[in-house]
Amino acid sequence: MAQVRNKQVLLKNYVIGFPKESDMEIVEGSITLKVPEGSSDVVLLKNLYLSCDPYMRLLMYKDTPVSLGFHYSPGSPLTAFGVSKVVESGDPNYKKDDLVWGVTKWEEYSLVPSAQILFKIDHTDVPLSYYTGILGCPKKGEKVFVSAASGAVGQLVGQFAKLTGCYVVGSAGSQEKVDILKNKLGFDEAFNYKEESNLDAALKRYFPEGIDIYFENVGGKTLDAVLLNMRSHGRIPVCGMISQYNLSQAEGVTNMAYLIYKEIKMQGFIVSQFYPLYPKFLEFILPHIREGKIAYVEDIVEGLESGPAALVGLFSGQNFGKKVLAIAPQ
Amino acid sequence: MAQVRNKQVLLKNYVIGFPKESDMEIVEGSITLKVPEGSSDVVLLKNLYLSCDPYMRLLMYKDTPVSLGFHYSPGSPLTAFGVSKVVESGDPNYKKDDLVWGVTKWEEYSLVPSAQILFKIDHTDVPLSYYTGILGCPKKGEKVFVSAASGAVGQLVGQFAKLTGCYVVGSAGSQEKVDILKNKLGFDEAFNYKEESNLDAALKRYFPEGIDIYFENVGGKTLDAVLLNMRSHGRIPVCGMISQYNLSQAEGVTNMAYLIYKEIKMQGFIVSQFYPLYPKFLEFILPHIREGKIAYVEDIVEGLESGPAALVGLFSGQNFGKKVLAIAPQ
Repeated sequence: MAQVRNKQVLLKNYVIGFPKESDMEIVEGSITLKVPEGSSDVVLLKNLYLSCDPYMRLLMYKDTPVSLGFHYSPGSPLTAFGVSKVVESGDPNYKKDDLVWGVTKWEEYSLVPSAQILFKIDHTDVPLSYYTGILGCPKKGEKVFVSAASGAVGQLVGQFAKLTGCYVVGSAGSQEKVDILKNKLGFDEAFNYKEESNLDAALKRYFPEGIDIYFENVGGKTLDAVLLNMRSHGRIPVCGMISQYNLSQAEGVTNMAYLIYKEIKMQGFIVSQFYPLYPKFLEFILPHIREGKIAYVEDIVEGLESGPAALVGLFSGQNFGKKVLAIAPQ
Repeated sequence: MAQVRNKQVLLKNYVIGFPKESDMEIVEGSITLKVPEGSSDVVLLKNLYLSCDPYMRLLMYKDTPVSLGFHYSPGSPLTAFGVSKVVESGDPNYKKDDLVWGVTKWEEYSLVPSAQILFKIDHTDVPLSYYTGILGCPKKGEKVFVSAASGAVGQLVGQFAKLTGCYVVGSAGSQEKVDILKNKLGFDEAFNYKEESNLDAALKRYFPEGIDIYFENVGGKTLDAVLLNMRSHGRIPVCGMISQYNLSQAEGVTNMAYLIYKEIKMQGFIVSQFYPLYPKFLEFILPHIREGKIAYVEDIVEGLESGPAALVGLFSGQNFGKKVLAIAPQ
């Protein structure tokens, strides 16, 4: 049977503090391109694109607090979302050459339970890598603040809020990112948080009447300053807290009592709870992408070898937009 | 026209740190028992019971963060909820001897805009002072934790959760309070937080499978420990954070990222947003009170003179249940 090379990115050690490239290891294994006899619930995938996301850092803790249905252990390849082509399927619902997206691994070929496939890809007139990204729900006229606004999620949140008729301000970590937010992605305003000695004052400048919706991607000091500037009945969807993932002791958030004073709702979420809405989301988003009404910025690097550096780079703000590993052409 | 004595409790200074009795002043003024000519929107009230609540501390800040529609200023009597009898009314919707509850002042007689009256009291077969107290919405079988469980709100939250079929654990600050929670109010378990060197461990003991609902009354370290013990999709209604009101710098809450990991919803609220539901609430609660199915503990002190000490005492846990000032018989 055909044995082929199967390059993999393994987790070497559980991580303390910021992840380093040396916490991961690239190895060249091999794989037989065949689904084991009688396995009616597994699929052999050729991985095309792999997603590279900040939450992956959380799975590198020995006792990860997050329950995504998978975790990392030393010596095993990193699990992640990806776009893949079916090489062979034990599960009759999939056949050779189907394009799918779902939970796969940081390797060239993956044998995965078919339950990990989330969706077959029917629309291939948009870049396939887009299927590793995307989220929102504001009302016209509301004032929206998005942190990590040039990140994979932030860029889209801001544009969706603009589509709905909101006033949208984003924060990011460089002048270049600020320029792209304003000039390419259509944010009303954007600022470089590294240049602001007083985040509270910065928010008061852009939101003299306060914030209706804060889309939380960073946590820590930013959240503390935002709480001081929320309007009554404001909402804070909590998507991520990237500033806290590498700290052994998280920064304390001191203005929690504003939840009461301003009757604020905070709601944390993990994307998996929204999978049932995915087909509906596609109906909404695909026309916007085809008509060029949504700008989607990807930061694509080539090959599994680039994975460790890409992942480490997320925590020093090296990416603009969605970080993706391109593993193979179809 | 009849002039009568009108004792008042004034705020003397804005307060820094814990409030002291000397931050308030008791004065004997006088008042003419007459609504000014042509005032069709004011009501003269004889105050019978005045509520004494932790949130009042927040109104003693020079720049109070909370918007209840009223604030305190030095030299003026404290504004608060109370039960009153109408002495005379300019507003044709009220007449002499009507019993009402709403926003009045810490004084014997108050001339207030009739808009501050929230409801006429129709049911007088339950103690009138009960109209200064009461909130919840859990599901059968859920695990509920209530902090400040022997406070005005906590005692009721716990009992409502029990009525709904939940497992309910409360925390309080003395063995005596713990005993009352378990033996009189029907909590499944209760513990003295002052005796627990490790709150996280204490919560794991009572909630080995985690907490579905945390009714937040205290904030700070307790909230931090609770976040570690919430179940996926847990809910945290945020009613108060009494441990933080007197601190110039609030304690930092470090486990905020659990909002994401466990997809938790936190929602702050102020009672005024629920006034439209009050008649419905009465329908629910009155039969329970009449049938003795709800134990409601009041901690009543006599006279305006007792007000400052009562208010100060809230912050060292001196009260059990709802603190009320009895001002006058009807």
